Amino acid sequence: MGELATLFGPKRVAVVGATDREGSVGRAITANLLADFEGDVVAVNPTKDEVLGLESHDGVGAVPDVDVAVVVVPPPIVLDAIREAAEAGIRDVVVITAGFGESGSEGARRERELRELAAEYDLNVVGPNSLGIMNTGVGLNATFGPENARKGSISFMSQSGAFVTAVVDWANDRNLGFHNVVSLGNKAVLDESDFVREWGEDPETDVILGYLEDVVDGRAFVDSAREVSRDTPIVVVKSGRTEAGASAAASHTGAIAGSEEAYEAALDQAGVLRVDTVQDLFDFGSILAGQPLPERDGVAIVTNAGGPGVMTTDAVGDSDLSLASFTDDTVERFQDALPDEANVYNPVDIIGDAPVERFAEALDIALADPNVGAAVVLACPTATLSYEALADAVVDLQAEYDTPVAATLMGGSSARDANERLSQAGIPTYFDPARAVRSLDALREYRAISEREYTEPETFDVDREAAREILESAARRDTNRLGVEAMSLLDAYGIPTPDGEIVDARSDAVEAAERIVGGDGEDGGGGDDGRGGDSEVVMKIVSPDILHKSDIGGVAVGVPPEEVGDTYEDLVTRARNYQPDATILGVQVQEMVDLDSGVETIAGMNRDPQFGPLVLFGLGGIFVEVLEDTTLRLAPVSEQSAREMIDEIDAAPLLRGARGRDPVDEASVVETLQRLSQLVTDFPAIVELDINPLVATPDGAQAVDVRLTIDQEQL
Amino acid sequence: MGELATLFGPKRVAVVGATDREGSVGRAITANLLADFEGDVVAVNPTKDEVLGLESHDGVGAVPDVDVAVVVVPPPIVLDAIREAAEAGIRDVVVITAGFGESGSEGARRERELRELAAEYDLNVVGPNSLGIMNTGVGLNATFGPENARKGSISFMSQSGAFVTAVVDWANDRNLGFHNVVSLGNKAVLDESDFVREWGEDPETDVILGYLEDVVDGRAFVDSAREVSRDTPIVVVKSGRTEAGASAAASHTGAIAGSEEAYEAALDQAGVLRVDTVQDLFDFGSILAGQPLPERDGVAIVTNAGGPGVMTTDAVGDSDLSLASFTDDTVERFQDALPDEANVYNPVDIIGDAPVERFAEALDIALADPNVGAAVVLACPTATLSYEALADAVVDLQAEYDTPVAATLMGGSSARDANERLSQAGIPTYFDPARAVRSLDALREYRAISEREYTEPETFDVDREAAREILESAARRDTNRLGVEAMSLLDAYGIPTPDGEIVDARSDAVEAAERIVGGDGEDGGGGDDGRGGDSEVVMKIVSPDILHKSDIGGVAVGVPPEEVGDTYEDLVTRARNYQPDATILGVQVQEMVDLDSGVETIAGMNRDPQFGPLVLFGLGGIFVEVLEDTTLRLAPVSEQSAREMIDEIDAAPLLRGARGRDPVDEASVVETLQRLSQLVTDFPAIVELDINPLVATPDGAQAVDVRLTIDQEQL
Repeated sequence: MGELATLFGPKRVAVVGATDREGSVGRAITANLLADFEGDVVAVNPTKDEVLGLESHDGVGAVPDVDVAVVVVPPPIVLDAIREAAEAGIRDVVVITAGFGESGSEGARRERELRELAAEYDLNVVGPNSLGIMNTGVGLNATFGPENARKGSISFMSQSGAFVTAVVDWANDRNLGFHNVVSLGNKAVLDESDFVREWGEDPETDVILGYLEDVVDGRAFVDSAREVSRDTPIVVVKSGRTEAGASAAASHTGAIAGSEEAYEAALDQAGVLRVDTVQDLFDFGSILAGQPLPERDGVAIVTNAGGPGVMTTDAVGDSDLSLASFTDDTVERFQDALPDEANVYNPVDIIGDAPVERFAEALDIALADPNVGAAVVLACPTATLSYEALADAVVDLQAEYDTPVAATLMGGSSARDANERLSQAGIPTYFDPARAVRSLDALREYRAISEREYTEPETFDVDREAAREILESAARRDTNRLGVEAMSLLDAYGIPTPDGEIVDARSDAVEAAERIVGGDGEDGGGGDDGRGGDSEVVMKIVSPDILHKSDIGGVAVGVPPEEVGDTYEDLVTRARNYQPDATILGVQVQEMVDLDSGVETIAGMNRDPQFGPLVLFGLGGIFVEVLEDTTLRLAPVSEQSAREMIDEIDAAPLLRGARGRDPVDEASVVETLQRLSQLVTDFPAIVELDINPLVATPDGAQAVDVRLTIDQEQL
Repeated sequence: MGELATLFGPKRVAVVGATDREGSVGRAITANLLADFEGDVVAVNPTKDEVLGLESHDGVGAVPDVDVAVVVVPPPIVLDAIREAAEAGIRDVVVITAGFGESGSEGARRERELRELAAEYDLNVVGPNSLGIMNTGVGLNATFGPENARKGSISFMSQSGAFVTAVVDWANDRNLGFHNVVSLGNKAVLDESDFVREWGEDPETDVILGYLEDVVDGRAFVDSAREVSRDTPIVVVKSGRTEAGASAAASHTGAIAGSEEAYEAALDQAGVLRVDTVQDLFDFGSILAGQPLPERDGVAIVTNAGGPGVMTTDAVGDSDLSLASFTDDTVERFQDALPDEANVYNPVDIIGDAPVERFAEALDIALADPNVGAAVVLACPTATLSYEALADAVVDLQAEYDTPVAATLMGGSSARDANERLSQAGIPTYFDPARAVRSLDALREYRAISEREYTEPETFDVDREAAREILESAARRDTNRLGVEAMSLLDAYGIPTPDGEIVDARSDAVEAAERIVGGDGEDGGGGDDGRGGDSEVVMKIVSPDILHKSDIGGVAVGVPPEEVGDTYEDLVTRARNYQPDATILGVQVQEMVDLDSGVETIAGMNRDPQFGPLVLFGLGGIFVEVLEDTTLRLAPVSEQSAREMIDEIDAAPLLRGARGRDPVDEASVVETLQRLSQLVTDFPAIVELDINPLVATPDGAQAVDVRLTIDQEQL
C-alpha cells in the first residue's frame, strides 16, 4: 500500500460535524460509518452530547488516535476544523462540505487556503465538495450516499458525486463490487494521479475505473498512469470530449478545457483504456476484474443458434480480435462429438437440439485448442437446454482452462438465474453478443498495453547554441512568427533541408542559384516526364509579416537560370504591393525537391497548456486541412513512438510503396520526428511549429518549408 | 392490409402433422395455437383420433374453410400435404418442416418443387425450415417457441428462428410488444420484400424490424422498402457484414455473399435504418414505436447531476443532433424557477437537492421552448427525489407536449419501478445516457428518411448506337477488357474527354500532336510554374493486353513536339519488349490536362450480382486505393444522388475551393456521374468501368483515362 494506506484503512474515523438531524449529510455519513465499519467511529459536534448513540466530542483534538477526519461542518469553519485535526496529528482528511472553488470568489479563496493548509501540515485531503470515500475491505463507508458498495476488486474514482451514488445503486443490483470508491470533489489537494498511484500499489485493487472531467496535472497523470498500467488496468471516461461537452464540463466543475487531441494522445500514451460511455466503462471494468488476459487473439464462438453466431462473428470482425482457426485435431474432435448437421468450424454451431452435455463438450474441445485465446458462449433458449446447468458447466470449464470467457445466454427471465451464476463467478453476461466481443477485445487491448515496452527517447548531438541564437535574434527583431528564415533552426537540429540561402540583392540571387544548381545538380528535381529540370530553383519571399506566401504570388517554382534575376524583382515587388509596410528580409533561393517521387507529409508541434509539447505527423500538402490524416504524441518522442506515428496515419501505405512506387526512407522521417521533438523540448519558447511539407522520398526526408511561433517571454 | 391479410388474420388454422407426443414440434405448435388464438384450430393427423382435445382429421382437405395450413409433417410428405391444402383452396401455408435447401441436394430439389407448387397454385408460403409466425392482434402463435409475444406495434422478421425465440423471451421481460413476428426460414417463396410490403400497408404495424443474412431479390427489396419507409420505419441488422461474418452466414443459411458495399448502398437508398447490433435494433425499434418524431434537432437535457449531464452532452456532440439553444424567455423562466446554483443553460442542472416538483417544472419549461425537438430526462438517485413520482411527471409532460423524450434514471433496484412506468408509456429508459441520445438520434434519422424526396433520374440525349458499335467491335476482336481505345464510348454518352486520337504510325502521331496542340493550344496544360507547356502532349500505348500501362513505361507525359515521333517508337518498342505477343492497337496522342488546377477523382461502376450496377465516385489518382475515399449508389443515379455522392467523400472540400483554390465545376462532375449511370444501365454487357482520373477543374470535368470489362454474352 502507498501513501494513502491510512486514508483507506483507518482504525478510527471522526465525523467532524456529526449530527442526528433527519435528512442531514452529517447524519447520513455517521450512520453509514456505523453500519459496517470495522474500526471506531467518533462523533465531533460541540452542540450535541450524543449522536446516533455515540458520545459527541467538542473537538477532533479531544479524541486520541483518530486516523481520518471526515469534515461536514459549514464552509466558514472547515479550515479551523482541519487545522485542529492537523494539530492533533491527523494526516488524512475528507472534506464533504461544498462552497469552495465551485462557488464564487470567496469559495475560491477558501480553497486556496485549504491547499496552503494541506501543504503546511502535509495532509492528504479528499475534496472539498466530495460525496466521500469507501473501502469495502474494512467496511468503510464515509459517504452520504444511500447505499454501501459490495465487495469487489474494482477501485473507482469519480469527479461527480451523483454518479458515484448512481453507480453503486446500479452495481449492487448486478453483482458488481468495488474495493475503494472515491468522490474526487474539487481535487484541491489529492487528485486522480494520487489515486492511480495508490491503487497501483494496492494488492486488493485489480482494476482502476475513473470518471474524469479534467486532469489536474497532465504530466504527473501520464507518468503515474504509465507506470501503474503495466500491472493494473485503468479504464477512464474523460468527458467534455466534444465542444458542447467541454463547455458543459467547464460550467459543471470549472474543468480546464485542455485540448481533446492532447487528452486523446496523453491517455493513450499513459496506457489508459479510454472509453466514451458508461456502458463500456463497466463492461470493460467487469471483465478485466473477473477474467484472465487472453494469451492470443483467436476467439472461439460456441453456439446452439446459427443466426446469432453470424452476428457474433461480425462483431469479432469489427474488433481487433480474430476468429480462431481450429487445428485439424480440434475439427476431428468436433466431428466425433457433434451431429452431422453441426458446423465444426468456427463459429461452432452445435444445433438447436443440443442438451447441456453437448454444449459443455464443445466448449471443452474449443478451449483445449492451442489457437483459442478466448471464447464466447452463445445460446438461445430451447426446450432441450437448461441455462442453469449450462452456466455451471461454463463456470467449471472457464476455471479449468483459465481462459477468458464471455457469455450471451439470450433471453429475459429464462436467463436470469444462469446469468447470476455466471456473473458471480466473474464471467460477464450480455444480451447483445456484440458487447461480449467488445469486452473480450478490451482484455486484448489491455494485454497489449501491459506488454508495451517503453524505450527512452534518444538524444541527438545538435547545435543548441546556434538554435538559441536564431530564436533570440528573432526576439531582438521583436518578431514572434518565423518562416523560411528559420530553416537554419532545423539545420542546427540536424533536420535535413534542401540546399538554399536567403539573399537580399538580385545579383546575389543569381549567384546563389548558380551555386545551388551547379554544386548539386545531379540530385535536383525533374525527370523524364518533361517537367522541371536540373537547372531550376524555387524562390520564396521571406517576410515575417507575410504568412501565406503563395497566396500573394510570393513563391516561384521551377525558375530557370535565366529568369532568376527577374523573378527576384517580381517577388519583392509583389510583396511590397501587397503590404507596403511589411519587413522584407529577402528572397530564399532553394534547390528544387522532386515532389513527384516523394510524398508530402507534415511534421509539427503545438504546446498544450496541460500536457506540454505535442508532436504531430501526417499527410501534408493540401490534404492536411481537408483530410486531417494526422496523429499526435506527447514529446519527447522515442524512435518507437515515431515509427508508430507513421503506422497510424491512413496514408501510411503511400510511404511504403503503394501502387508500385518506391518506398520512402522511413528511417529519415522517424529521425526527423525525434529531432523535432528534441528541439521543441529544449526550447519552451517555441509555441507552435509546422514543417509543411516535409517531403519524404526514397532518398530521405527534406523539410521544404517551416513556420513557427515563439513566445519571447520564454527566451 | 395487403396480400398476406389472411396469412396473419386467419379465422381457421390447420396444423398438418398435429400430435400430442411430448417434446414434439407438432405438439408445441398445436398447444401454442390453442392457448390464445381467437379463431378455430384444426388438427390434421391420420394416425390420431384426437390431439390435445381436438378431433384429428385425416387430411386438410377434409375440413372446410381452413385459411392457413401450418405444415409440420416429415420432409418427404410435405409437398403432398401442401398440394392437398392447395386443392382444398388454402392459399396460405407455413412450412415448419426442415430438410429443404439447407440440407443437401435432395433438400434443394424438394425446395425447387415447393417453389413450383407455390407458383402453380399462387400460394403464400412461409419457410420451409421456419419457427412459424405470430400475430398478437388475433392471438395467433403458430410457432413452436416456448413463449408467445406481448401485444405491441412492432412487426419483426428474422432469418434465424432461434433468434426469434430469444428475442420474444427477452422482450416479454421488458414490456416490449410485437404485432407480427415471422421466422423467415429458407425464404423459398415469401421473402423479406413481401413482409416489408405487407407491413407497410398494415395500420397495426408502426415499426418493421428485421434480422437478415441476405436479401433474395435486391431490386425488389429496395423498391418496396423505399416505398414503405416513407411512412413506416424499417430497422435491419444485415449480418455477414465482415469477411468472417459473410462466411459464417454462408455456412448458416447458404446466404448469397452479395458485396457488403452493395448492401450498404442499397439499404441506405431504400431508407432502411441499418444497425449492427441487437442492442441498437431494439433500442431504435422501441423508441420509434413509442415516441413521436422530433420536429427539430435541438435536444434539451434536464438533470439533477452535473457529471452525467456532461457525458450526455458529449453523446449529443457525437450524434447528428444538437444541444438546443434556449430562448431568452426560457432562460428567464429557468432563472425564476431554479435555485441560484442551478445551470439555466443546456444541459439544465437543477442541482442535487431537487424534489420532483422542480424536476417537472424544469422539464415543462424545456419542452415549451420552440428550439427543443426532444428531451433527455437524466437523474441520479437522491434522498429528495422519488423516481416513481418523476416517472409519472415525465409521462404526463411527454403526452402533453407530444415531444419525444428518453429517460435515464440511473440506478439499479431503486429505478426499477419508475423505469417500468416509463416504458409502459412508450418512453424508453437506459442506464447509459449515451444510449438515450443514440435512440433519439435514430428518431431524427428516420424523420430525415421520411422527408426524403426521390427525384427521377434524368435521361440524356446520347448516341446509343455508336456506343453499341464500339462494344460490339471489341467483342468481334474477342476482347473483354478495353482501355483508352474506349474513350469514344464516353464521347458517345457525352462525357467530356480531352482531345486525342489513336494512331498507328509515327507520322500520324506527329500530325495528331500538331493538330491537337495547334487547334486548342489555349486550353492546354502548363502555367507560370515553369512545368509543362501549351505545346506538349500525353502519349499512351493502346493494347487490350497491357493493363497497367504506366508500370511498363507505356505512358509519356509532357512530350514536346520535337519528341513526338521518337516517343511513338519508344512506346511501341517498350510494349513489344514487355509482351511480344500483345495486340498493339496503336498509340493514343492526347491533349495535356492541367492537373495542377484540378483534382483527380474517380468515377466508376461495378455490377453486383444482387443489386445490379453500382456507380462509384471518389478521390482519384494514387489516393483511391490507399485512402478509399469513395462512395457508391445503385444505378440509375439522379442529379440529387450524384450531388450527395460528392457531399459524402471526405475530400469534398478539395472540390469546393479549400485552401484558396478555385472551386471545380461541380455540375460537370454531377452530369458525368448521371451519364455514366445511363451508360451502364443501357448496357448490361459493361461489367466494370473505371474513369480514373476524372479530372475536375473549374472549367469542367474531363475523363482522362478509362478502363472497362465487358461480358460478350450480354451483347
